[in-house]
Amino acid sequence: MNYPETIRNLIECYKKLPGIGEKSAERLALSTINLDKNVINLFSKSLLNIETKIKRCSKCNSLTENDICEICSNDKRDRKTICVVQEPKNVIMFEKVGTYDGLYFVLNGLISPLDGIGPDDINIDLLIKRIKNEKIKEVIIAVKPSIEGETTALYIQKSLEKLDVVVSKIAHGIPIGADIDYIDSLTLEMALQDRKKISE
Amino acid sequence: MNYPETIRNLIECYKKLPGIGEKSAERLALSTINLDKNVINLFSKSLLNIETKIKRCSKCNSLTENDICEICSNDKRDRKTICVVQEPKNVIMFEKVGTYDGLYFVLNGLISPLDGIGPDDINIDLLIKRIKNEKIKEVIIAVKPSIEGETTALYIQKSLEKLDVVVSKIAHGIPIGADIDYIDSLTLEMALQDRKKISE
Repeated sequence: MNYPETIRNLIECYKKLPGIGEKSAERLALSTINLDKNVINLFSKSLLNIETKIKRCSKCNSLTENDICEICSNDKRDRKTICVVQEPKNVIMFEKVGTYDGLYFVLNGLISPLDGIGPDDINIDLLIKRIKNEKIKEVIIAVKPSIEGETTALYIQKSLEKLDVVVSKIAHGIPIGADIDYIDSLTLEMALQDRKKISE
Repeated sequence: MNYPETIRNLIECYKKLPGIGEKSAERLALSTINLDKNVINLFSKSLLNIETKIKRCSKCNSLTENDICEICSNDKRDRKTICVVQEPKNVIMFEKVGTYDGLYFVLNGLISPLDGIGPDDINIDLLIKRIKNEKIKEVIIAVKPSIEGETTALYIQKSLEKLDVVVSKIAHGIPIGADIDYIDSLTLEMALQDRKKISE
């Protein structure tokens, strides 16, 4: 005796999600039974919509339900600055901060020779083409400070060398509110190296 | 700018599940996009099936896709013993052990006067009726050893006082493999009280 088929299927589906093991999937599937009817319907419909409605913006590769996303089609934004991020999630994070009003470009991951991911796999061509076509003035690279991140940043920088465009990288250093005692030495080294003069 | 509507809806649905907060829901929704097309279809279909196919067994209140569940309709099982559990999940747990071959009865929770849950809310009537009608010989109470569990067990025991039926409770004690140093004193007290003679 096991769960009815519907529940077994649901457990299998939950298990495909990252960080969800056998036990959690079982718990989620059984809790799903107690959800409100409207929520279940919306859940089911949204899953189908993921396939039919969600696309990648043809300009910035971000998630959208149209051909071109809200930001790329917004004329009020600074259309000469482009911020390069790793995932669609990062766009939302920067938008929540609210101070950046330029454009974005979402890479499809980072260059990682060890995993066989080269520049061709992460849409860098599309980025370079856009920078040329739209006469972008500044490219801000906002990827994580790992080996892959640095390699990707370097590759983008090299590709743009002959163009009249400023390439910058977001600052790495000590997070606000963090205790210096607990910061790793690499971050500390970077924070020291990128120090900012505050007296004249 | 926020996520497209489909993704926002999906985040809201994931958030309705227990233990899933804003950040986890966002992560799950974004990972859902990368799932295989077949998985997404199965996921969506299973959610709809939950409403249409999943029922409660009319005899034991367990989850089933039929009117009467596999166990209640299985003539090869011991039909004179009934094991009372709190949730459908517990049935599967006992079935995995594999040594019990009687029937089950799934309560809808436990009696908890503080939360306003009385005997009428957890299907005890249906249990008593079944015990009478099917001339059950032993009722094994397998609910958790909390105040609510003990209250529920006591209530069932009292309700069956005048019938010719043995009421038993699964043993509480030290789990196999556990270190006695780390066992709480209440469990230790119960383990001492329910000690078993091993010499003649």
